[in-house]
Amino acid sequence: MQPHEIDARVRDSFAKQSIMATLGAEILAVRPGEVEIVLPFSDKVLQQHGFVHAGAVATIADSACGYAGLTVMPRDAAVLTTEFKINLLSPAKGDRLRAVGRVIRNGKSLVITLGEVFAESGGTSKQVAMITASLMVVSTGTGLKD
Amino acid sequence: MQPHEIDARVRDSFAKQSIMATLGAEILAVRPGEVEIVLPFSDKVLQQHGFVHAGAVATIADSACGYAGLTVMPRDAAVLTTEFKINLLSPAKGDRLRAVGRVIRNGKSLVITLGEVFAESGGTSKQVAMITASLMVVSTGTGLKD
Amino acid sequence: MQPHEIDARVRDSFAKQSIMATLGAEILAVRPGEVEIVLPFSDKVLQQHGFVHAGAVATIADSACGYAGLTVMPRDAAVLTTEFKINLLSPAKGDRLRAVGRVIRNGKSLVITLGEVFAESGGTSKQVAMITASLMVVSTGTGLKD
Amino acid sequence: MQPHEIDARVRDSFAKQSIMATLGAEILAVRPGEVEIVLPFSDKVLQQHGFVHAGAVATIADSACGYAGLTVMPRDAAVLTTEFKINLLSPAKGDRLRAVGRVIRNGKSLVITLGEVFAESGGTSKQVAMITASLMVVSTGTGLKD
Repeated sequence: MQPHEIDARVRDSFAKQSIMATLGAEILAVRPGEVEIVLPFSDKVLQQHGFVHAGAVATIADSACGYAGLTVMPRDAAVLTTEFKINLLSPAKGDRLRAVGRVIRNGKSLVITLGEVFAESGGTSKQVAMITASLMVVSTGTGLKD
Repeated sequence: MQPHEIDARVRDSFAKQSIMATLGAEILAVRPGEVEIVLPFSDKVLQQHGFVHAGAVATIADSACGYAGLTVMPRDAAVLTTEFKINLLSPAKGDRLRAVGRVIRNGKSLVITLGEVFAESGGTSKQVAMITASLMVVSTGTGLKD
Repeated sequence: MQPHEIDARVRDSFAKQSIMATLGAEILAVRPGEVEIVLPFSDKVLQQHGFVHAGAVATIADSACGYAGLTVMPRDAAVLTTEFKINLLSPAKGDRLRAVGRVIRNGKSLVITLGEVFAESGGTSKQVAMITASLMVVSTGTGLKD
Repeated sequence: MQPHEIDARVRDSFAKQSIMATLGAEILAVRPGEVEIVLPFSDKVLQQHGFVHAGAVATIADSACGYAGLTVMPRDAAVLTTEFKINLLSPAKGDRLRAVGRVIRNGKSLVITLGEVFAESGGTSKQVAMITASLMVVSTGTGLKD
């Protein structure tokens, strides 16, 4: 697929993830094998101490990894996360979070990804999470479509 | 702490997690070492195929584990998730999701938990996810409070 | 497959894992969906503090999970671990370690398992690790055979 | 600590890990925040298909991460792995495996690491695994010493 087709494919699919609008997350960049998602800090996504909830951090990190996977998949394949693990390195606070997902291994049935989440404030950036995720390649013949 | 104090502690802290109201999640049960959270299916929490997003599944699973940990913590301790891993076993769909978190190891500085998420529809229940999470015990002297 | 065929299949495959003889591990039990492996404490498997190395704990835990998966697989399928996560709950010491692996989800292309490792000494038993593992179902047509 | 002291500290501790001699693993390099371990292919470390067992891959990956952590720890601290997750990207075969562990976050009570394992054959190198590990910082006052 051409870069502009890949870009459109990811943005179209992302627009269907209602949780992203609910949390306020947006796509920042789409490159072959790499996707970035940002989540502005807001009082809709917090845990009890006022930090962004680990689940919200995981949500954008997982989607950044999943869409990084989608950029390398054939037209007739959809992507489903089968597992991820996230290490939370520091409390997630700041102006916004930026998640970057990258493909590490593009296998026939599984795509393995690595992602990082940064808290950005003014001009500063600090890594607050690290994620590894496995994506299953699912034929669109199953009815699933991205 | 007495059971009713533990119950109040968890529910008070949960009420401060704004993301729970944003997603529509609620506490179902609090027992020593075990907490249940439910998330009704809604069009606010979906991924592109119409299933509940893995991040929303992870959010209630992580909180169920975190609050299970809080039930066994001394009064002057708060809890922070340092990492979790989730296996997504089946697409998350149905009337609601129910996450159960349980303490497996109550250590001095780390509490280790295991959780399950079930999709419930009518009278049926199907496990859709499994999570393991590590919680750091943080002194409330740091300013953090649950 | 019949129980005695499943038992023979697992034990035959286990006998081909040279690392098990190297570490001193043995199969203790084979049941449909569940396998137990024991590792006697010895000075061949230690880390620097005199506990059993996390890698040795992981080795028997991973194999217990993998063989639990094999008990539910068709004759023409082999099993490969694609990922696992292990939480080390307490230092691994005692007379022997016993790992129990169980199938949680028997999917067409992925089998998900949960395992526990116990340190046993005299009549006592203490859980020292918890593992979750994903196994890929591989056709023996690929040349892989268990 | 000086680089040569760090180097000696890691190598002395590694020499006490009896499992490394059992498997045939050796330290390749020690740098501040990064350690490399190699495992020559041998018939002592295999699984049933003739690949290096995931547990052996995990053993050197975990130790590379653990010792990377030790390079940044104060003199009076020892290091214990509390959890790790490993993604197995490709069958582990070749002349030798090389594991590289790096510190991602050097926290007061937890050090978070990321590691890669490569299969090397002749002049070629292929990544076969990715690991993330959490290390607990333990005071040597507890009796533990690295």
